[in-house]
Amino acid sequence: MAAATRELVRREVIPIEDEYDGDVEAAGGETLRRDLQAKAAAAGLLAPHGPVDCGGRGLGMVDRAPVFEEAGWALFGPMALNINAPDEGNIHLLDHVATASQRERFLRPLVAGETRSAFAMTEPAPGAGADPSMLLTRATKVDGGWLLNGHKWFITGADGAGFFIVMARTSGEPGGAGGAGGATMLLAPADAPGLEVVRHIGTVDRSMLGGHCEMRFTDVFVPDDDVLGGVDEGFRYAQVRLGPARMTHVMRWTGAARRAHEVAVRHVAGREAFGGRLADLGMMQQMIADNEIDLAATRALLLAACRELDDGGRASESTSIAKTFAAEALHRVVDRATQMCGGLGVSRDLPVARIAREIRPFRIYDGPSEVHRWSIARRAVRRLAGDAR
Amino acid sequence: MAAATRELVRREVIPIEDEYDGDVEAAGGETLRRDLQAKAAAAGLLAPHGPVDCGGRGLGMVDRAPVFEEAGWALFGPMALNINAPDEGNIHLLDHVATASQRERFLRPLVAGETRSAFAMTEPAPGAGADPSMLLTRATKVDGGWLLNGHKWFITGADGAGFFIVMARTSGEPGGAGGAGGATMLLAPADAPGLEVVRHIGTVDRSMLGGHCEMRFTDVFVPDDDVLGGVDEGFRYAQVRLGPARMTHVMRWTGAARRAHEVAVRHVAGREAFGGRLADLGMMQQMIADNEIDLAATRALLLAACRELDDGGRASESTSIAKTFAAEALHRVVDRATQMCGGLGVSRDLPVARIAREIRPFRIYDGPSEVHRWSIARRAVRRLAGDAR
Amino acid sequence: MAAATRELVRREVIPIEDEYDGDVEAAGGETLRRDLQAKAAAAGLLAPHGPVDCGGRGLGMVDRAPVFEEAGWALFGPMALNINAPDEGNIHLLDHVATASQRERFLRPLVAGETRSAFAMTEPAPGAGADPSMLLTRATKVDGGWLLNGHKWFITGADGAGFFIVMARTSGEPGGAGGAGGATMLLAPADAPGLEVVRHIGTVDRSMLGGHCEMRFTDVFVPDDDVLGGVDEGFRYAQVRLGPARMTHVMRWTGAARRAHEVAVRHVAGREAFGGRLADLGMMQQMIADNEIDLAATRALLLAACRELDDGGRASESTSIAKTFAAEALHRVVDRATQMCGGLGVSRDLPVARIAREIRPFRIYDGPSEVHRWSIARRAVRRLAGDAR
Amino acid sequence: MAAATRELVRREVIPIEDEYDGDVEAAGGETLRRDLQAKAAAAGLLAPHGPVDCGGRGLGMVDRAPVFEEAGWALFGPMALNINAPDEGNIHLLDHVATASQRERFLRPLVAGETRSAFAMTEPAPGAGADPSMLLTRATKVDGGWLLNGHKWFITGADGAGFFIVMARTSGEPGGAGGAGGATMLLAPADAPGLEVVRHIGTVDRSMLGGHCEMRFTDVFVPDDDVLGGVDEGFRYAQVRLGPARMTHVMRWTGAARRAHEVAVRHVAGREAFGGRLADLGMMQQMIADNEIDLAATRALLLAACRELDDGGRASESTSIAKTFAAEALHRVVDRATQMCGGLGVSRDLPVARIAREIRPFRIYDGPSEVHRWSIARRAVRRLAGDAR
Repeated sequence: MAAATRELVRREVIPIEDEYDGDVEAAGGETLRRDLQAKAAAAGLLAPHGPVDCGGRGLGMVDRAPVFEEAGWALFGPMALNINAPDEGNIHLLDHVATASQRERFLRPLVAGETRSAFAMTEPAPGAGADPSMLLTRATKVDGGWLLNGHKWFITGADGAGFFIVMARTSGEPGGAGGAGGATMLLAPADAPGLEVVRHIGTVDRSMLGGHCEMRFTDVFVPDDDVLGGVDEGFRYAQVRLGPARMTHVMRWTGAARRAHEVAVRHVAGREAFGGRLADLGMMQQMIADNEIDLAATRALLLAACRELDDGGRASESTSIAKTFAAEALHRVVDRATQMCGGLGVSRDLPVARIAREIRPFRIYDGPSEVHRWSIARRAVRRLAGDAR
Repeated sequence: MAAATRELVRREVIPIEDEYDGDVEAAGGETLRRDLQAKAAAAGLLAPHGPVDCGGRGLGMVDRAPVFEEAGWALFGPMALNINAPDEGNIHLLDHVATASQRERFLRPLVAGETRSAFAMTEPAPGAGADPSMLLTRATKVDGGWLLNGHKWFITGADGAGFFIVMARTSGEPGGAGGAGGATMLLAPADAPGLEVVRHIGTVDRSMLGGHCEMRFTDVFVPDDDVLGGVDEGFRYAQVRLGPARMTHVMRWTGAARRAHEVAVRHVAGREAFGGRLADLGMMQQMIADNEIDLAATRALLLAACRELDDGGRASESTSIAKTFAAEALHRVVDRATQMCGGLGVSRDLPVARIAREIRPFRIYDGPSEVHRWSIARRAVRRLAGDAR
Repeated sequence: MAAATRELVRREVIPIEDEYDGDVEAAGGETLRRDLQAKAAAAGLLAPHGPVDCGGRGLGMVDRAPVFEEAGWALFGPMALNINAPDEGNIHLLDHVATASQRERFLRPLVAGETRSAFAMTEPAPGAGADPSMLLTRATKVDGGWLLNGHKWFITGADGAGFFIVMARTSGEPGGAGGAGGATMLLAPADAPGLEVVRHIGTVDRSMLGGHCEMRFTDVFVPDDDVLGGVDEGFRYAQVRLGPARMTHVMRWTGAARRAHEVAVRHVAGREAFGGRLADLGMMQQMIADNEIDLAATRALLLAACRELDDGGRASESTSIAKTFAAEALHRVVDRATQMCGGLGVSRDLPVARIAREIRPFRIYDGPSEVHRWSIARRAVRRLAGDAR
Repeated sequence: MAAATRELVRREVIPIEDEYDGDVEAAGGETLRRDLQAKAAAAGLLAPHGPVDCGGRGLGMVDRAPVFEEAGWALFGPMALNINAPDEGNIHLLDHVATASQRERFLRPLVAGETRSAFAMTEPAPGAGADPSMLLTRATKVDGGWLLNGHKWFITGADGAGFFIVMARTSGEPGGAGGAGGATMLLAPADAPGLEVVRHIGTVDRSMLGGHCEMRFTDVFVPDDDVLGGVDEGFRYAQVRLGPARMTHVMRWTGAARRAHEVAVRHVAGREAFGGRLADLGMMQQMIADNEIDLAATRALLLAACRELDDGGRASESTSIAKTFAAEALHRVVDRATQMCGGLGVSRDLPVARIAREIRPFRIYDGPSEVHRWSIARRAVRRLAGDAR
């Protein structure tokens, strides 16, 4: 399936991405998504990770890695295969937690690409940013359901999403000791009264359909049937979603970084200066080798974590390590590729600058590197110093 | 003058930059330039580095450092003071080499901001990129002047420039041994027949008026009077221009990086998470301290090189070291600032993302770090191992 | 077997290492080796990688990784298990290439720990250092055998070795184009006339029995029966030895670096300063997390390469990448551990300083990182730019 | 004076250092010190920083920089000129604080090299390590003086020192809020009853006469006349000593790192491999250039701080920044030099390995980099975010 993905992406996706410099709205937005997904469906490549009963291909983590990497080789590739964040993680989450009815109403159309979704968790200060325990959005029990009130932002794909999985506090207080209890996931269709997409936050990346948005929930009524999983179980489900979602991010960005690297290697292999081919200069060789090493180490850590996930583990530590390493290593790869391409590396004439623009937030999204390091260190101290703090 | 610059920049320049996210064309382009320069002139701040007889303030390198840094604190600040590349370097060059008549016709209006200029040196492969000895553009002697033919790109500020300083081969062959001889600088007004600005190369930065352009010179006639300096002396003059131009780049970008740092420090000083203020977390403190160190080291190297230039030295080595260090250190500063600001660091809501976008090419423009390192190493081997290779 | 190794190492090896600060000669040298190996043999742990018919345990690469890591946790651990360089690699090589007679005379006693061996390849300038094509030592055909003449250095374990595998040029010229042909491996007992161990080169590491020595071969006669494998096949065999030998180095040093990390984590978990526990300071957490990441990435790359070797591949690229990454990552781990321990980190009171001393050469031995990067880059350019240079 | 120092060091000091691999005790210890200082005195180079009335040359900070760097080029060079830590800092401190009588009894013989001294501040946990507020050693007022009790370690030069400046708590409690008040400096001759040098802590460095020792003070009586400065003023005096002492460390280590760099450059300029001279390979050039940049930036930061000190400033921030940068940059320089020299870089055959061994603790001694960064960050937050925490 990787080979077929590679073929589809190069034939159908790259020309459009190149023409519009990776700006998904300029390239057609929702229309482009439907076009590309139709082509992927025709090639049997739509939703390779989706549950089989919903029309997906049911690939496990290890098996999806090469497919997702090939899709990610183009910025619009994951959208074409319907494996983009946040839908991809939402499919995983719904597959594990949704009721039969929710599965029909929400999961099946999502796998089929008939709609898009978003995951509404992050909040502006003083709410839940990197520290989820500070969750401020509240759902209050009312007759037959819940009333949802809150303020969210950086909600990826929100503009145009068909429905939202909203994380809301149903007990406890923000920043409370431990802070792990008390959140519930709620399903809210985009046209629910009181649900508002306020604005696109103008982020540096432009390839994500629906942008990263600011949202307000004002007395949004969510019927009991649309509670996703158990009440007060939200933080636990977020963990279920998190590990695989981190790893599929790594898969996709590995593809993008690899493209930048390949472009750069071909660039320096085709240029002469200082009496020889650029690719034969030692400083270029050092950058090429460092890219190869960073890509290999990223894949090795990714596969170790995917094996753990496929074996049924939570893999909190290994996915955290793999995500942190990958976000930094792939950024280095693209940065070196930029440098190798010289002036062209910061221009639209090559795809490298656009990949650099898109990949930068990966060190921040899905947990900034600093938060992952904090968590990795605490585990290590507990493990090595027999300490429960 | 630094304090007055600071005041002007904050009052007049920053609001416009913030509104238009540092996109100079969107913000008004040439109209904006004339507006801002009128305000700078009214404040006695126009062309602080320009020769006094042409209306400038005649500041030496050491004295201009704090002024340029304050101007660079805003992306449009250097344009406001008329100290932007490439005009700033061209003023320096013309001041040293122009004839009295050239001084009147080219230098005086440039200092006054009545026109802009560009420096046409870089060529697409297989011409002169990082290796100037590969210069392909030729000027051929004809009766009363020279015929100029060639292809240039990454010509900063070309679109809308009033005149060009063009580097052309007048003897020798590209890539020849040594390759240092044989180039001449020619002055060509923008409306010279055969001179064509082909396109803007779509680079990641957007704050530079006139963009980075591709140009063609087809039988452009340059009268003998418009030869700048001696025939075949072009490479030597380029060196005269280079040292100070590198250092003023460092001054301006130090200002921009400092702004990103200041914004980030204030951001983390105003946020709470994980049970305390972000600014009190050790990983944040490490980034803050590393930024302070990088800024201090950049300024220290800059001043050492400026002193050498003010003392009349060529300062090839010290400016090369300072430029290389600064381009990388300031990039690190802005990257850490991005990380410190989290999601806002990659958004338009803060100026950090835009500064990151603008500063990235500095490691490539004015000599990629790799070329500087090659040259620094060769000098060191010669000096330490008594070697003439 | 890893658990038993761990137990043996902690009970029998660590106390001696700690007492003598890892100086193998001070700790007893050859006597210590025989003592420790007797204990390992009693525990069924001797030569876990050795061929079963010679008394080893026949572990493949993936299976030996955790055992070797546990052995490497102590600096004298690999010697105790008889899995130290260069014997370990020589066992692998002899197992693949030795004749039945050579197997009895050389391999069997080596696996049993009855003797030690060395691999004599590296030469002082202008001979074969990082670039094997410059091999100067020659073997000249004479009646019934070969006459060996040459100068070697950095021959690990030479002093006290029972026999040597000597790499000598049997055709071609040093530095010749390609330079891959023309070397032969010869077996020479330590008491062969003309074979001389000139001196120990005083290297920073002190845990390797037999040191790193300078040697001279003067008309050393090697009978035809003691040619190891085919004439002129030496460079190919060196490759056979190389891949696994690199990986077992990584296994052992991973153990040593992990010990430094564990010591450091326990140190900062037990100290208070600046109003709290050191282990809870963000800068400490960053070092702890970076160590965890570096260790995880090292192991992931190692296992990927070991799988390839166990599957019968040459694994030149994956072992080169894993070795280069590991040598640098493990060095970083130990350096951070040093920093975490403060003054004690550079003292004999903790094992960290001694591990730092021993691990530093790993970035140089078995191919300096620079040579590996050169080779990794050349492969990448060939693969990605379709280039045969 | 720099040139004369250079000459003295190369002629008299280097041969001995090379012979004994920088081990000061092996090279003669106290006898060597007296020999070398006699030669320095004869050349008019003894105590160039000492006060003139005590026989020194009275050089300010900027002026001593090149002299100290030349002395530091050899590991025993600073001892030869009597500008080694801790005497050098003690001379500075006594010059500022000592009474006339103390000046005669302690300072004059110290400047003349008739005795050595030590500065007893650091304590084992849970006392004052990187955090001075945890000071546990106490001086209790008794009739006519003070009784000193406490436990110190890492007291540089203690073994053989003629007298000690001891930091002891005279009020307040360890770790108290702020914790800055309450310490006093006391002068104690080595033969004071109750003063005991317990042991040398076996640190990795071996060039420091008198080692780094553990000490105990048991009811040591210090007469009132031997209190250095005011009671409870000790922390303030420690700051007076600190700034210049940090900078002279940087000067000396810059010399040592430069020597490693010079040796490495000459090494690669004299070797051939891979078809050319090592010094012409790009990866070597990168290391050479990075060394030049790190050395230049170190010197630039050093001079900026020295100017501030010479102008009478406290220079807490600039010396902290310069020390932190220098300790890491010089370590990188020596590490790259090691790598450039290959196997010889980790051997006694070149001085590089020994310089690496000696310079490693500099990132820990005189405030670990982490503590400096913590302090730099806190200042920055205060300055930029108007914050008094």
